Amino acid sequence: MDVKSLRINGDRLRNTLEEMAKIGATAGGGVHRLALSDEDKQARDLFLGWLQEMDVEIKIDEMGNMFAQRAGKKNSLSPVLSGSHIDSQPKGGRFDGILGVMGALEVLRTIHENRLETKRPVTVVDWTNEEGSRFAPAMAGSGVWAGKLDRDWVYARTDIQGKKFGEELKRIGYRGQQPVKKKPIHAYFELHIEQGPILEEEGKAIGLPKGIIGLYWYDVTVEGQANQVGPTPMEGRRDALCAAAEMILKLNELPAGMGGNMVATVGEIHNFPNSRNIIPGRVDFTVDIRSWDDGLAIRAWKEVRKNFEQIAGKRGCTIRIDETWSLEHTTFDQKLLKRLEGITEQLAYSKHSMISGAGHDAGYLNQVAPTAMIFVPSIGGRSHVEVEETKWEDCERGANVLLHGILQSALEE
Amino acid sequence: MDVKSLRINGDRLRNTLEEMAKIGATAGGGVHRLALSDEDKQARDLFLGWLQEMDVEIKIDEMGNMFAQRAGKKNSLSPVLSGSHIDSQPKGGRFDGILGVMGALEVLRTIHENRLETKRPVTVVDWTNEEGSRFAPAMAGSGVWAGKLDRDWVYARTDIQGKKFGEELKRIGYRGQQPVKKKPIHAYFELHIEQGPILEEEGKAIGLPKGIIGLYWYDVTVEGQANQVGPTPMEGRRDALCAAAEMILKLNELPAGMGGNMVATVGEIHNFPNSRNIIPGRVDFTVDIRSWDDGLAIRAWKEVRKNFEQIAGKRGCTIRIDETWSLEHTTFDQKLLKRLEGITEQLAYSKHSMISGAGHDAGYLNQVAPTAMIFVPSIGGRSHVEVEETKWEDCERGANVLLHGILQSALEE
Repeated sequence: MDVKSLRINGDRLRNTLEEMAKIGATAGGGVHRLALSDEDKQARDLFLGWLQEMDVEIKIDEMGNMFAQRAGKKNSLSPVLSGSHIDSQPKGGRFDGILGVMGALEVLRTIHENRLETKRPVTVVDWTNEEGSRFAPAMAGSGVWAGKLDRDWVYARTDIQGKKFGEELKRIGYRGQQPVKKKPIHAYFELHIEQGPILEEEGKAIGLPKGIIGLYWYDVTVEGQANQVGPTPMEGRRDALCAAAEMILKLNELPAGMGGNMVATVGEIHNFPNSRNIIPGRVDFTVDIRSWDDGLAIRAWKEVRKNFEQIAGKRGCTIRIDETWSLEHTTFDQKLLKRLEGITEQLAYSKHSMISGAGHDAGYLNQVAPTAMIFVPSIGGRSHVEVEETKWEDCERGANVLLHGILQSALEE
Repeated sequence: MDVKSLRINGDRLRNTLEEMAKIGATAGGGVHRLALSDEDKQARDLFLGWLQEMDVEIKIDEMGNMFAQRAGKKNSLSPVLSGSHIDSQPKGGRFDGILGVMGALEVLRTIHENRLETKRPVTVVDWTNEEGSRFAPAMAGSGVWAGKLDRDWVYARTDIQGKKFGEELKRIGYRGQQPVKKKPIHAYFELHIEQGPILEEEGKAIGLPKGIIGLYWYDVTVEGQANQVGPTPMEGRRDALCAAAEMILKLNELPAGMGGNMVATVGEIHNFPNSRNIIPGRVDFTVDIRSWDDGLAIRAWKEVRKNFEQIAGKRGCTIRIDETWSLEHTTFDQKLLKRLEGITEQLAYSKHSMISGAGHDAGYLNQVAPTAMIFVPSIGGRSHVEVEETKWEDCERGANVLLHGILQSALEE
């Protein structure tokens, strides 16, 4: 057969995704499948069953990362790896993460049923806890695998109920024997929904990100003075929420002032004592700044930090800022990008060069191996919400690009 | 003896308050004695024991309001009533409410040990659930007694765990037999801490409020669109928290623009989904506007409401506003105020005429009977917090004013 004419089975991919979407399904049409929850276990079990229908070698490592390898002709050569994550955001969508795992599974099924022989082994992977919403940080499985996070440190992370990552991993039966350790990878591909509005706005089917935006996280605590609302005159108040509100607006204006494709967001806020008739005495909030230009992000933060301190001072509050996490921007592999561009053209799909605004396991993988991603459009640009949606034909197109990306890489010496 | 030379026992009052402060004592030096909690029961039991040491008739009504009446010479005459509330804010202070109940108890003890005969009966009261922080609304006991709230409606109110007011009242053994119903009262006095900084700033010992400020409560819900932070450009975002932040600042600027002794506060805010990397899709917050001039408060709210709607529209959000509660300003009884002024002068205490910025049971009582309040200074103006503090000598001064206020009223025909 002509390998170039090979296509994945769109209906099968859809059925697979629909089966997965039943696990942790929410009333609002999304899924709630937090890392290391019962739902995560159920979805992993289902995935495992599907893998076992093929002739693959399955390995689960100490972080619960699941690898299924189909042998090539030359198994001494490093494999081509592809996957994403099964876990979801709280009340998240049916496509984020899971599309990349099921897409890679569909590619493996297509190769398998066509009895294709690749030179290199082809491996499908589910990375543990990409979302980081139950256990921070995000991308824990790929981070430890890549040697950027410490396994035991991650084991000791706790969820909001105080449950430990390591114990929950064991509880669901996915704390494997395989040492968690990077190894040579010939190429890593990750299919993912865009999670933004750009492909839809541009009317393009396939997004080919040149890399992942740099990401800077800060935790801010503003302390004022709690007091009874009624008898405390406006003058002399030290209202921590008013100070925080001014900071939130200042941050929101930042990207327009700095130029570049920067975004800056306060997503989380906690007000204390949070009582209707008490002046807020303390507010904690998060800052998320992202930019392709790390230098710009850092300069912007320096400026905004100064503004925050001024606002706090002006309102009689103190401020404490913790630099929680940062990841410099990632540039994907040029050769793989070119390969995916060529494939997309051959498949006659429209394509768009862009930047990934969200972090992905591909970010850590890129530090170990040549890496590239394939994006498909998010309807209305919505993601991390129950109404997250991608057209089935777009899922199919993305998986076809993935198929040929994997095949071309697996067929080369 | 010369009644005019009579004084309460400052040491005994202090000991009484210190004993009470042990019940629900917090590590930060305050008390946590929520309405109808085990701590409320314990404090009521202690109070009851102290009352029973005197020759008084104790009645507990269906709302758990506790009345202890000492007979006068003419028991057909309506009594003089005085008290406040035993319940506290969550992690609140050692003076708010309890000073008014223990102050009235101290007055009764002073009258009792001096074997004074009053014309009218003198009654001490603990009003149930003044704070309203466990069960909304506030001032529930006095509100039902005054005929302004419905008993069964209050019984059905639930706390955050879903426990019903009526059942909790029964559980702690204070759902009494006495019908809860207003009756003729000759005069009502309430001793209370100021809960603001004015007396301290003015260097005055006794505050004599001419009334209670009008109070207007609103609940605001701003709906935007939740979305992944990274891939969603700044343009086109519908960030509910940014909209709320702009509203919070607008409200904060309101009193300066309107003049009058108005205060306006956002004390409570809830952000959804409240995740570091998701653009806030919905924010709920409260608005509290207070003014002596109800017309001004209502005009101010109308203006701010228009601003809120503009801000929501500008930021692509929708807004819903509920008018939760309002109480028009209360003017206390002129004759009783004059009486308290005279007493304060006779006692040679410095005094200050003011307005109460906080609601009190006295607000409901004033709708039924001639009413007046006595304020003592709050150190640093702090209240509803663990560090709430009033000097013992100020407590003593306040109780002496209360003593003579009660006596003069109880001695008249």
